[in-house]
Amino acid sequence: MTKAADPKAPRAELERALRARIDGKAKPVGALGRLEELAIQIGLATGSLSPDLGLAKIIVFAGDHGLTAEGVTAYPSEVTREIAKLILAGTAGISVCARAANAGVVLVDAGLLAPLDAHPRLIDRRIAAGTRNARLGPAMTTDERDAALRAGEDIVEAAVRDGTRVFAFGEVGIGNTSASALLAHALTGLGLYFLVGNGAGVPPLGLAHKREILAQTFARAALPASPPGARAEAALSEFCGFEMVMMAGAINAAARHACIVVVDGFIATAVAAAAIARDPRVRDHCIFAHASADIGHWQLLENLGVEPLLLFGMRLGEGTGAALALPVVMAAAGILTGMADLPGEHPQ
Amino acid sequence: MTKAADPKAPRAELERALRARIDGKAKPVGALGRLEELAIQIGLATGSLSPDLGLAKIIVFAGDHGLTAEGVTAYPSEVTREIAKLILAGTAGISVCARAANAGVVLVDAGLLAPLDAHPRLIDRRIAAGTRNARLGPAMTTDERDAALRAGEDIVEAAVRDGTRVFAFGEVGIGNTSASALLAHALTGLGLYFLVGNGAGVPPLGLAHKREILAQTFARAALPASPPGARAEAALSEFCGFEMVMMAGAINAAARHACIVVVDGFIATAVAAAAIARDPRVRDHCIFAHASADIGHWQLLENLGVEPLLLFGMRLGEGTGAALALPVVMAAAGILTGMADLPGEHPQ
Repeated sequence: MTKAADPKAPRAELERALRARIDGKAKPVGALGRLEELAIQIGLATGSLSPDLGLAKIIVFAGDHGLTAEGVTAYPSEVTREIAKLILAGTAGISVCARAANAGVVLVDAGLLAPLDAHPRLIDRRIAAGTRNARLGPAMTTDERDAALRAGEDIVEAAVRDGTRVFAFGEVGIGNTSASALLAHALTGLGLYFLVGNGAGVPPLGLAHKREILAQTFARAALPASPPGARAEAALSEFCGFEMVMMAGAINAAARHACIVVVDGFIATAVAAAAIARDPRVRDHCIFAHASADIGHWQLLENLGVEPLLLFGMRLGEGTGAALALPVVMAAAGILTGMADLPGEHPQ
Repeated sequence: MTKAADPKAPRAELERALRARIDGKAKPVGALGRLEELAIQIGLATGSLSPDLGLAKIIVFAGDHGLTAEGVTAYPSEVTREIAKLILAGTAGISVCARAANAGVVLVDAGLLAPLDAHPRLIDRRIAAGTRNARLGPAMTTDERDAALRAGEDIVEAAVRDGTRVFAFGEVGIGNTSASALLAHALTGLGLYFLVGNGAGVPPLGLAHKREILAQTFARAALPASPPGARAEAALSEFCGFEMVMMAGAINAAARHACIVVVDGFIATAVAAAAIARDPRVRDHCIFAHASADIGHWQLLENLGVEPLLLFGMRLGEGTGAALALPVVMAAAGILTGMADLPGEHPQ
């Protein structure tokens, strides 16, 4: 066995040691392709030559959006709660993806309009009964935002204490593709026009109406131009749902604890971009699971300079894409922890 | 719950019922993208509106190739057995991918040079101690080929009796990218030049030498021009390893038993093409897991008119790509079996 790298060794040294270790495994050099690149990322992010990722955990944050009053969504806000109930019942889209990935799912009520009945897989961290209408004013107060960020950190820290080292975060929140388009626009400067898609379905007043409402909403808000973290935090409270803000806090905490974050679709990617703006080191901990059918997601992935793993044209959210990428991530870590070395050769 | 379709209903009717069922699930229409198409394929292949796929099984066939005497491989034949031993020990590339996919692995000795010690996960169906040098004459007799085909059928039928409905087949056999190039050339007419790649590594006498040996080998063999099944069977005995022929028998049997076959990389795809030539209905049962880094694999997938699920640039074989696709296949079936219907709407 190769001895563990000095945790204070510089990043380049650890990367060299990881490549040598992977090249010394019982396979032709490079034969596991993308998995080998992931293994190096995982080793660097966890600071380990043999990263023990434990069990993966899927955490789905749910919250309602006041902006749904503006006719920008195909479904009414009440559907957020219906999907949340299906997740608890184990019959949602994420439920089947999580079973296929052999990972557990917990649901966090970050701010649904109405609370859910207690359930063993429900974490109640409700900030409020939905956000306010972001076209008319901030979706939440800065105190509410900070409480949501802290709640996300708390949830991750509890899971880390229980041994979780890989997180897949999902979301449910009718209206949150609108919030994500505004957040991504604020963070990247990408044109709002191309960041706004149909989301879960064609809005009743049409896509042009949705774009107009979002342009008005963006124009109303005063965001600081810099630093990036302050701008991201302002955009989170101005436009976003509690489920998104809580996920941002969770991503930041997961990265601080040297964990891996598997990022889902458009909404989760916009939230990850906010977490990266708050702390650029977060990027190295994120694995982008898939490119969704949403054009805004492609734009955003390209702007972040990242390459998604799966190209399945999914656009359901709930963490479904991240769940399907989990086995790939676990297999990549397994190269370092579970494969034999080539006989007669030893890395380093 | 929707009642099961009449198993004698025509395929178009079942497809319509499957689409209606999927559209009626608790998600926007089409929101699970590629998974929905897979779910329809799985429903059609299994003849069921709620296909119970049971547990997936990964079966890796191992065999040695006489053609390795010609200097066409980067590794000596002995490496086949070393990898087979790592698979039994649980420390091969397929071992980490299988654990990530939560699926068991069995190894079949189809014809290694030397037998392995008994092991709970080893199936001994040795036809002979490796094949003969295909440049000089047929790799195996037609009796040996038929015995290998039957062994593959037996192995699948035993697994079906135990409840397996999804198979991922892998292979280990130094020299089998050469055999696969010859098989694919015989089946498709694709130019041998582009079907021949480095395989596990650059051959010691170079790629031009490998191409020259394979051209000589192909020219030596007399294959019937038709029917396709006879040509495929002749190519299997003329050029291929026992591990490949046994996999062909296994694929044909899995399709006959209405099972799903997750096809791995270049070698498994060439073998699947042979199984399809023997019985065109096999195609509907095959899900092509990934496109490998091997240019021959891309050519062959395009020739078959199929779209692989994963694009990770892997080229290890052993079933590694198929294993990583298993959770995607299980999630797709889960849309039909594990997701709630939309409240108030019922498919059909």
